[in-house]
Amino acid sequence: MRVLLTGGRGFIGRHAIGCLLASGSEVHVVSRDARPISGAFVHPGDLHDEQFVSRLIDRIRPTHLLHLAWCTDHGSFWSSPENLRWVATSLDLLRAFADAGGRRVLVAGTCAEYSWNSSVLNESSTPRIPATLYGASKGALREIALSFARVGALSLAWAHIFFLYGPGEDRSRLLPGVVCSILNGQQAKCTAGTQIRDFLHAFDVASALVALLNSDAEGSVNVGSGEPVTIADVAQRAATLAGRPDLLRLGALPARPDEPASIVADVRRLRNEVGWRPSLTLDEGLADVVSWWKRELRRTEHAVDVDHQA
Amino acid sequence: MRVLLTGGRGFIGRHAIGCLLASGSEVHVVSRDARPISGAFVHPGDLHDEQFVSRLIDRIRPTHLLHLAWCTDHGSFWSSPENLRWVATSLDLLRAFADAGGRRVLVAGTCAEYSWNSSVLNESSTPRIPATLYGASKGALREIALSFARVGALSLAWAHIFFLYGPGEDRSRLLPGVVCSILNGQQAKCTAGTQIRDFLHAFDVASALVALLNSDAEGSVNVGSGEPVTIADVAQRAATLAGRPDLLRLGALPARPDEPASIVADVRRLRNEVGWRPSLTLDEGLADVVSWWKRELRRTEHAVDVDHQA
Repeated sequence: MRVLLTGGRGFIGRHAIGCLLASGSEVHVVSRDARPISGAFVHPGDLHDEQFVSRLIDRIRPTHLLHLAWCTDHGSFWSSPENLRWVATSLDLLRAFADAGGRRVLVAGTCAEYSWNSSVLNESSTPRIPATLYGASKGALREIALSFARVGALSLAWAHIFFLYGPGEDRSRLLPGVVCSILNGQQAKCTAGTQIRDFLHAFDVASALVALLNSDAEGSVNVGSGEPVTIADVAQRAATLAGRPDLLRLGALPARPDEPASIVADVRRLRNEVGWRPSLTLDEGLADVVSWWKRELRRTEHAVDVDHQA
Repeated sequence: MRVLLTGGRGFIGRHAIGCLLASGSEVHVVSRDARPISGAFVHPGDLHDEQFVSRLIDRIRPTHLLHLAWCTDHGSFWSSPENLRWVATSLDLLRAFADAGGRRVLVAGTCAEYSWNSSVLNESSTPRIPATLYGASKGALREIALSFARVGALSLAWAHIFFLYGPGEDRSRLLPGVVCSILNGQQAKCTAGTQIRDFLHAFDVASALVALLNSDAEGSVNVGSGEPVTIADVAQRAATLAGRPDLLRLGALPARPDEPASIVADVRRLRNEVGWRPSLTLDEGLADVVSWWKRELRRTEHAVDVDHQA
């Protein structure tokens, strides 16, 4: 297997490289950043540059494509026009991959392609009524990709990724916010957090994606834990692992309007057809995040000290 | 109104230019072909070239966009990978138009976005289950375009165009095939043609599109006649207008498998909200096609004579 990986330096992609190497693949990462990645080939360039991508694919001749890259700026990606650009770039990528004889594709989709009025989301029975431009763009790309795979004899799987967390998450997001406040000895103000979600550690998401890529499963497959948990429960566990649960202030912030009550993955396809299960419990995953932020905050503090001495 | 028109030299587009000019618009046509078009500004270039398109739109600053261009090669367009390219190009075009302050968009969609298991297709109640890559691509583009319009404050209408006919249609298609055979005094072999369709002359399609562009209607609007007619009836009328109905051989060819029994537009939105009605009856439209082919065949014959003399 010769795998072309996009988004290889991203939140999921950085874990996917190790999983791909462990499964015996030759890994080719396209990235604007030319720095080497241990065990993988790095091809510096811009995915939005159609000529560059098609020449690169012609040269590498990948058998497999794991396409994770997308616009992910926290807050803005839900309604950014960049979503249109990523659909266009993804279509160019798919065409070039098929033209060069590629066989197997996995694209990272999202739970935001579904209507969020059901509590457990199933690949075939839950209506696909996305509430956002991000969800509509991913969902539209899925429709084209599946139809293209049928006429072009590509084997294509589409991962609906649910909620994820892990080291390196944007600090303005809920979990890093709670963990960093508490590690700094400050109050962590949150909403009541009664809504139910499905969380999976980014390493397990990557591991599931690589298992799915290496399987024969086609079409939509949910990638989640299948374990309902409230936001409040996640925050409490994280606060406890960070050593100061007393600093957590659930309900200190008003609830956002239109927050869906429950978004949980039906993971039967992932478990039964792909045969994959998470390797980390929620507590193990959260402990990893707390340790990472401890190191990160020490490193930043140290960097500040050095700055002051300069 | 300053209108940017794509596909302006196509089967519908060539009629759209006159309708746009008649409605008082300044018309800008993007075309690979630099030849002038009476009354319009022609901007020679490749729509697939994102840089060219975005610079052009920045310069023209169109208020309206009428996007008709797509891959239309008879037979192959249903499953061509070019569909992916046209989705990508259309998304780049939409983004550039919105960036430059454009306000109103009409994109040419198709009845192939619907499931063909209903007999009369309605914009809101008929399921959207396209059977082809062409239908899936147009349908996916529609989803993104509508969602993008909502977040970007664009006013966007989407035309589901049904079956069309007119001068200049590809000669390998049914109606030109029948008309040319008969005008040449040869038998015209057809299938039994019992399937029901909705036909509109390309001039009327263009006229409906321009009326829709100039209206406030948003979202999906069917563009058809709303008049069910069998393929056999169309062929018989055309054969009669061509002067030799005795040469028509309905049922001489086997029916194609999987031909939907009926595809007819529910045109209530077009009639009631846009206030548009066809200007040509089916017989008037077919008479126009027969006259056109008479001239065309004489011209070709003359060209052949000239060749023989050379």
